[in-house]
Amino acid sequence: MGFSLLPREHQFFDLFDKMADASVDAARLFKQFAAEGTFDEAANEKMRAIEHLCDDITHEIIDKLNRTFITPFDREDIYALAHRFDSVVDIIHAITKRLLLYNLHNSVSKDLIRFSELIEQSVKSLAAAVRGLRNLKNVKIISEACIEINRLENLGDQLRDETIGKLFDNSFDPLYIIKWKDIFQDAERALDQCEDVANVIESIMVKQA
Amino acid sequence: MGFSLLPREHQFFDLFDKMADASVDAARLFKQFAAEGTFDEAANEKMRAIEHLCDDITHEIIDKLNRTFITPFDREDIYALAHRFDSVVDIIHAITKRLLLYNLHNSVSKDLIRFSELIEQSVKSLAAAVRGLRNLKNVKIISEACIEINRLENLGDQLRDETIGKLFDNSFDPLYIIKWKDIFQDAERALDQCEDVANVIESIMVKQA
Amino acid sequence: MGFSLLPREHQFFDLFDKMADASVDAARLFKQFAAEGTFDEAANEKMRAIEHLCDDITHEIIDKLNRTFITPFDREDIYALAHRFDSVVDIIHAITKRLLLYNLHNSVSKDLIRFSELIEQSVKSLAAAVRGLRNLKNVKIISEACIEINRLENLGDQLRDETIGKLFDNSFDPLYIIKWKDIFQDAERALDQCEDVANVIESIMVKQA
Repeated sequence: MGFSLLPREHQFFDLFDKMADASVDAARLFKQFAAEGTFDEAANEKMRAIEHLCDDITHEIIDKLNRTFITPFDREDIYALAHRFDSVVDIIHAITKRLLLYNLHNSVSKDLIRFSELIEQSVKSLAAAVRGLRNLKNVKIISEACIEINRLENLGDQLRDETIGKLFDNSFDPLYIIKWKDIFQDAERALDQCEDVANVIESIMVKQA
Repeated sequence: MGFSLLPREHQFFDLFDKMADASVDAARLFKQFAAEGTFDEAANEKMRAIEHLCDDITHEIIDKLNRTFITPFDREDIYALAHRFDSVVDIIHAITKRLLLYNLHNSVSKDLIRFSELIEQSVKSLAAAVRGLRNLKNVKIISEACIEINRLENLGDQLRDETIGKLFDNSFDPLYIIKWKDIFQDAERALDQCEDVANVIESIMVKQA
Repeated sequence: MGFSLLPREHQFFDLFDKMADASVDAARLFKQFAAEGTFDEAANEKMRAIEHLCDDITHEIIDKLNRTFITPFDREDIYALAHRFDSVVDIIHAITKRLLLYNLHNSVSKDLIRFSELIEQSVKSLAAAVRGLRNLKNVKIISEACIEINRLENLGDQLRDETIGKLFDNSFDPLYIIKWKDIFQDAERALDQCEDVANVIESIMVKQA
């Protein structure tokens, strides 16, 4: 009987793997848009498609949770992991939309490029941690990925402080400052959100210890 | 013995029902103030009274939790539900106060009216979901209410983006923009907070599945 | 056997006591910098040192959690308590950095002094609550500390509203308003964060009730 339940457990990991793939796609696209300075309607559309895919995966995970008796971790932890992971792509999409909304979609900002690189690295580490959950023997891989996500969040804090400091030093246009300050704060929030997911993963590991 | 414990469980649901009623009152008043453009001292006072009522209900729930052995759900979930539900009225009150504080209390804003309608719908769905918890056979009602809260939160995101975009397009007065941007962001946070409570409810359902 | 496990449990409390001491140090320093108007590089350096100490303590707690079988509370609650407590000093440090970044480090603001006093009181109450966890017979001390933290958070909300209202009434310089608004909002967030930790503590108490 234990045997027949195993395939169902695998389905959860398969869905989280799909979410990991989609998140890495979103982060990679974001970096590309930042490098090219092309946060236009087409870019926004591509990001929206990935966000919808992640929403669908999240609903599928919760649906499966409601119909499955045995789960690889505590049910509420799978729920929390799905929801918070989903928020990572939500924020990346939100920044993309905001750049369009603020008419900043054609600007190339070196600072935004640096943020997009940190975000991509963090999302890749997150994907590695989530994929590692399939086998708790991967504790070292997971733990190292979480430390890396933490390190990148600290770098993001510094970068946000530095870029916002520069905004006030180099501009006297309040609307320009308000807009870019929002963008850089959101970019830092994307790194916070990755750390938030890493915290859920660490909390799952701690329970199993 | 099971019988004698039942009345105590009912008391939790009675308190959550009271909280649901108070939240619907707050959302209805907020919609009325928005329609009339009367966020004055009197309006603020009415909202403060509802907020204090909700604080009292929350404390009563936690107090009961500390003196009751058998609870309808996990103790920490009742605690989380009470706290986060309480935050919904907190935010509605905070927006009311802020409009007064920013000297915007006599303006009629079509966008704020639209927000107030979304908030009222979301709070009503939330009330339906919370009332449904009394009987877990209501799983369909609860689940549909949570989906509706989610849908309204998405509409709120779009409305916030649209209204803030318009602010930057139509005004060059930074102070005007700063003030209304805060108001619209807070309004969207009210919808976020409803979704946050819906997530606690979904998480409770998932545990019981 | 129960006896031989006790020393390990004590280690968790010892670490939380260290965190409490460091947080009180940070809050006291912050009040001093505010009173003197000296948020300079040296002040920032002192605060950073305390923040790093708290990071180290947090990692030690999580590390111990991964190597200890019996814990005084649910493992995930110790994890949550460590993480959220750590965030209190993070925010106090963030405000310190921001004042330097915004070139406000030599200003003396009566409102910031009032905030720094509320923050110190709240952190002291938090330290009392956390120290109380060592013996659950301290339920009254813990509960009173949590009520006090809640009261201070409410005062902080009022103070933030009042100070931001004054900013808009007394200044027409958008950059000045943007900067100080950020500072006062962050200061209020420090009080929110203390309340967040108090909520984790209350939730632990509720489970044990």
